[in-house]
Amino acid sequence: MATIRDVAKLAGVSVATVSRVINKNGYVNQGTEQKVRKAIQQLHFEPNAVARGLASKRTGTIAVILPDITNPFFAEMARAVEDEARKHGFTVILCNSDDQGAKEKTYIEVLKKKYIDGIIFASQTLGKEDVAQMKKHNIPLVVLDRAPSEEDCSIVRSQNSMGAQVAVRHLLETGCRKIAHIYGPQEITTAKERLLGYEHAVKGFDWFTPTLMVPGNFRLDGGMKAVELLLEQHPDVDGIFAGNDLMAVGALKALHRLGIRVPDQIAVCGFDGIYLTEIMEPELTTVAQPIYEMGSLAAEILIQKINGTLQENQVCELEVSLIARNSTRRERMK
Amino acid sequence: MATIRDVAKLAGVSVATVSRVINKNGYVNQGTEQKVRKAIQQLHFEPNAVARGLASKRTGTIAVILPDITNPFFAEMARAVEDEARKHGFTVILCNSDDQGAKEKTYIEVLKKKYIDGIIFASQTLGKEDVAQMKKHNIPLVVLDRAPSEEDCSIVRSQNSMGAQVAVRHLLETGCRKIAHIYGPQEITTAKERLLGYEHAVKGFDWFTPTLMVPGNFRLDGGMKAVELLLEQHPDVDGIFAGNDLMAVGALKALHRLGIRVPDQIAVCGFDGIYLTEIMEPELTTVAQPIYEMGSLAAEILIQKINGTLQENQVCELEVSLIARNSTRRERMK
Repeated sequence: MATIRDVAKLAGVSVATVSRVINKNGYVNQGTEQKVRKAIQQLHFEPNAVARGLASKRTGTIAVILPDITNPFFAEMARAVEDEARKHGFTVILCNSDDQGAKEKTYIEVLKKKYIDGIIFASQTLGKEDVAQMKKHNIPLVVLDRAPSEEDCSIVRSQNSMGAQVAVRHLLETGCRKIAHIYGPQEITTAKERLLGYEHAVKGFDWFTPTLMVPGNFRLDGGMKAVELLLEQHPDVDGIFAGNDLMAVGALKALHRLGIRVPDQIAVCGFDGIYLTEIMEPELTTVAQPIYEMGSLAAEILIQKINGTLQENQVCELEVSLIARNSTRRERMK
Repeated sequence: MATIRDVAKLAGVSVATVSRVINKNGYVNQGTEQKVRKAIQQLHFEPNAVARGLASKRTGTIAVILPDITNPFFAEMARAVEDEARKHGFTVILCNSDDQGAKEKTYIEVLKKKYIDGIIFASQTLGKEDVAQMKKHNIPLVVLDRAPSEEDCSIVRSQNSMGAQVAVRHLLETGCRKIAHIYGPQEITTAKERLLGYEHAVKGFDWFTPTLMVPGNFRLDGGMKAVELLLEQHPDVDGIFAGNDLMAVGALKALHRLGIRVPDQIAVCGFDGIYLTEIMEPELTTVAQPIYEMGSLAAEILIQKINGTLQENQVCELEVSLIARNSTRRERMK
């Protein structure tokens, strides 16, 4: 295999010049550059990525830190990140954090040492000091699902509070008169914003009482348990808005086991728009986020930051949209 | 930040000596090593992974090439790979191939240049020449779901043909008298083996005819379309064995739309054991592979190969197990 020295010799220039051409840094005059490129071609020289990483401190690798790839929401997002990254010649390191701060911090340490070019952070416990540290080390960062201007980084998110209000309004329109909410872990921004959106939409109604808000854990089993708890206290509930689709699927399952008909007795609406909602019976109504778009936009912004074509931090809030399906398709009741 | 030169200066040794200590290669006497380690500590020197990769040709990174992370089967497997890799201090690069040979080849090229330490290949179109090339470049390789001794590499797989026979026997035992099979793409080893297993189990029966085998594509929509095709030709089918769970879920959905009761009119059994089977209504019977175990075993073997603690190629065939649920729970009929 040809080395950088062979290229330098054939082109009649120094190794440093060849390195400048390969890494596109520093001045090389056009004639020299052409000679170097010709030599590279003739010798079938392949500059290796590790050596280039060392020289340019770039490796063509980004990382995505997310809670759990087996959650379909994050699988779709990761797929989008990887598709977009590949288009630009980047590879993607996958990190499952289980939303544990300690795991996330360990990843950041490891990734820093590997000269990762940038990080997409779809996990929740990123602290201000982490952001500051990455800034210090010049590692571009895009976070998903955070409050705008909370930290000094780019953000891709969707309309959580507004989406929750859309869900409640839809349930009211289909005739529901006592609507409960299963909320996700309150340390997670999106869960909190959706809960606030629900509260805002229902607080004016006579039937509203705080015990209509029951905790879930953003997972299937959380949705199932929440339904049991809810129906003990409020057997007359006729609508459920779940803070994410996995909990809505769990709720549907629990209702089925209890012999409660959906949507006739209780209508159910989720949030996210994962494909699971479509395969359920009845199909689930959901407030859909543009999941794939969010992942691909996050990757695009990150790569622009890495390439230096984008200077300012971006905060993008994408629109959500209600997808009405059979789980809320009921006759309007008085 | 301290550099390797600072460490060398403080320890009173050459940069090459420090490098030997960091990369644990070449002889360094004990006293010198202690001096170097002390200097590293004093200066808070962090040897960077890229430089070490260049020296040792190792980067602590493995790659997993799989068809599509949004398929729950591969999401669970990737999760297992990453969990196991992290335990050993490795990070994981995720590559979605969509089972396209061209994408896979591009990945192999990119990964080679990045000094990836090893590759887990869960995609299908890996050719003999790819395996040979990786061997030439000394990149350890573990493949999932291949025929044993087909190629010169380690293999982790499960009992596909046997599992198919278990599925057919179970359907017969629950009273089915005309069992169809929806098969996956025949260029995929697992799909082929399951089809052969089905054929082997049913070919002795009077009712068997080749048109009972209908193609799917290992996806939901394939399962749905296959049911329509099947019922046109064989309205009297009373059992369906789908070559994977996603197609079984699709079949269930299509049967529901056609107003056909599962399991009373048609019993359905899938293959894989993904969690989706549990959330369906009725819950799906399936031949479960130990998905997480397969992923974690593949990572373990790969890392042993990388670390040099395992020399020989391993071929591991893991057991499958029938999980009988409501989609086949019917009264025994004559």
